Amino acid sequence: MAVITLTTDFGDLYPAVMKGVILSINPEARLVDISHSVRPGDVPGGAFMLRFASGHFGPGSVHLAVVDPGVGGRRRAIVIKGEKYSFVGPDNGLLMPAARAQGAYRVYEITDLSFYVRKVSPVFHGRDVFAPAAAFLSMGREIPGLKEIEDPVDLDFGTPEIKSDRVIGKAIYVDTFGNVITNIGGEDLSGLLRQGLALKVNDVETPFVRAYCEAPRRTLVLLVGSHGMAEIACNGDSASTLMGLSAGDKVIISLKS
Amino acid sequence: MAVITLTTDFGDLYPAVMKGVILSINPEARLVDISHSVRPGDVPGGAFMLRFASGHFGPGSVHLAVVDPGVGGRRRAIVIKGEKYSFVGPDNGLLMPAARAQGAYRVYEITDLSFYVRKVSPVFHGRDVFAPAAAFLSMGREIPGLKEIEDPVDLDFGTPEIKSDRVIGKAIYVDTFGNVITNIGGEDLSGLLRQGLALKVNDVETPFVRAYCEAPRRTLVLLVGSHGMAEIACNGDSASTLMGLSAGDKVIISLKS
Amino acid sequence: MAVITLTTDFGDLYPAVMKGVILSINPEARLVDISHSVRPGDVPGGAFMLRFASGHFGPGSVHLAVVDPGVGGRRRAIVIKGEKYSFVGPDNGLLMPAARAQGAYRVYEITDLSFYVRKVSPVFHGRDVFAPAAAFLSMGREIPGLKEIEDPVDLDFGTPEIKSDRVIGKAIYVDTFGNVITNIGGEDLSGLLRQGLALKVNDVETPFVRAYCEAPRRTLVLLVGSHGMAEIACNGDSASTLMGLSAGDKVIISLKS
Repeated sequence: MAVITLTTDFGDLYPAVMKGVILSINPEARLVDISHSVRPGDVPGGAFMLRFASGHFGPGSVHLAVVDPGVGGRRRAIVIKGEKYSFVGPDNGLLMPAARAQGAYRVYEITDLSFYVRKVSPVFHGRDVFAPAAAFLSMGREIPGLKEIEDPVDLDFGTPEIKSDRVIGKAIYVDTFGNVITNIGGEDLSGLLRQGLALKVNDVETPFVRAYCEAPRRTLVLLVGSHGMAEIACNGDSASTLMGLSAGDKVIISLKS
Repeated sequence: MAVITLTTDFGDLYPAVMKGVILSINPEARLVDISHSVRPGDVPGGAFMLRFASGHFGPGSVHLAVVDPGVGGRRRAIVIKGEKYSFVGPDNGLLMPAARAQGAYRVYEITDLSFYVRKVSPVFHGRDVFAPAAAFLSMGREIPGLKEIEDPVDLDFGTPEIKSDRVIGKAIYVDTFGNVITNIGGEDLSGLLRQGLALKVNDVETPFVRAYCEAPRRTLVLLVGSHGMAEIACNGDSASTLMGLSAGDKVIISLKS
Repeated sequence: MAVITLTTDFGDLYPAVMKGVILSINPEARLVDISHSVRPGDVPGGAFMLRFASGHFGPGSVHLAVVDPGVGGRRRAIVIKGEKYSFVGPDNGLLMPAARAQGAYRVYEITDLSFYVRKVSPVFHGRDVFAPAAAFLSMGREIPGLKEIEDPVDLDFGTPEIKSDRVIGKAIYVDTFGNVITNIGGEDLSGLLRQGLALKVNDVETPFVRAYCEAPRRTLVLLVGSHGMAEIACNGDSASTLMGLSAGDKVIISLKS
């Protein structure tokens, strides 16, 4: 009973259409939504969500992700077959961080977009291409016209710069609570933390804590989130709003004094 | 393993109650949410969503839909048994477009509302009447007190008026992205499109494109959506807001010059 | 095929992580979302939602709930084994109203938080403690280090004060429609209703009706909701906004004259 996860920026309605297609091909598929609230067209945000959530599923799971501003244009449709998981989606970098995290993998272009539906909608490959491909993969069924490629569009979250008195990275995702997740790993902070827990983020006082509940309400804090990344949070408020920080913005963590 | 889809305007919490009831009757049912974000009481909007999404599910699926401003009043509760699908919901037109789309069908009133729960809540037939009925249908189990009727409340999306230089229809649904979906089919535009792709919608310049990515960002475009209907979209913004268009509003598509 | 329900204030993304963990332990688990839109940290609101929805599931269901402002601090993690259901979550009262409603029960502390994951994140027990515990319970598998406790943190919705001409209670939950649900049971109103249906809520005229559709649009009404509690509603508008009523606020229902 294979699991297929879904990650899209489709909001409402359209995910159900993809599920109908999947279940009409593989009635045994177990469908799990990772998110349908990726910001419209936000490929790095979707890539982060997929990267974080996908690793918690069992081996053999198929991860279907569609954040696809280039749909109907020249971007390729791809399948990634990895050691632990398969992935299906557009060739725009969305799948790459998650694929890299799970071990070795190979990338294939779906050269025959109409392998399942004769008339493919140029606005909804999620339904006509990716959903059938995910269903096929979940059944171990061959997708006709797969061709290995060596040059998928890549995306990574960047490497933070680590200095003795500061770490310079960037915000990569803002979650439902307004917590700002950075590309700075917990271990990247160890040099700073050896010098004290009184830190600043972009010159705003932001003490380091272990858990949300250690922070007084409505106080900015820095912690290592459940994804292992440094996260700026505010118990009872949105750190993103308070700090004016959005995905992509520079984040400098430094000693307070 | 029968699929039961759910389409409601219940938002949060209440759908889970219906799912509990369904699974306590048929633990094997596969539940798929079409939407629980139909605008409260928006029967035509819900009917469009059900019409669009339902057709992608496999034969034998049961579609449960509850957008039901008349609950507890005199409106009838109905079951529709169709060639491909069964439907359950209120007799207010909600189910009709989807039922018509799937082939032949017969409509039945549920004359005994308390066929499953002795004390039916006058505010939540979704739980006490429709969920049990859907569960019964998914198991091929008879619902006591079904009576065929010939006069269900109907609803359709209207027929656009096609002239040589314009097509006059209406908006029927605004999706999560603010795309405005009309009752004008792709084929209804063929006369206009033979004369050029430079079109206007309600006197605003709105070129015809094949795919979202063909449009410059923040530009209004007209395209044929994945439902086959003419759709006014704006890459990176809400066409509904920009055009001031809501469901029900008149839409005139004409040649630019 | 055991059902596991999920109730959290996690919004997006994090619920999927818990589902991945559950399915990687018990691939047969049936996952049903009760809500992931509990207001952040609103333990009584989550408790009400769980209390209302949980009772509609079949016996043997496992209810996993995480509204957990104290995560990573000293609050205990608990399992409740009841006559009809099991529950997993933080020891902050969240589970108690639902547990009490289903019959006899015993409460156990999970003394060994790392029974499944060696390195438990201090910010996401939902993933590292509660999800594995729910998966174990759904398979009848023992959770190591359970210890019965007698003093779980309790929570109830209070008892309304019933007088001959008024009933004094409080708002306990505001639903998606803005309906205000109180801690006043339908039966608590019987004395008032024998004297007439013309009632006031907090001095605002609010006639008693049986069903939403009996109320003129945009008029405040009082009814007994599907949970059996007195509910202030407004057909086509938010009673919560109109009355300025939030969860926790005092509600006085009295005769109009």
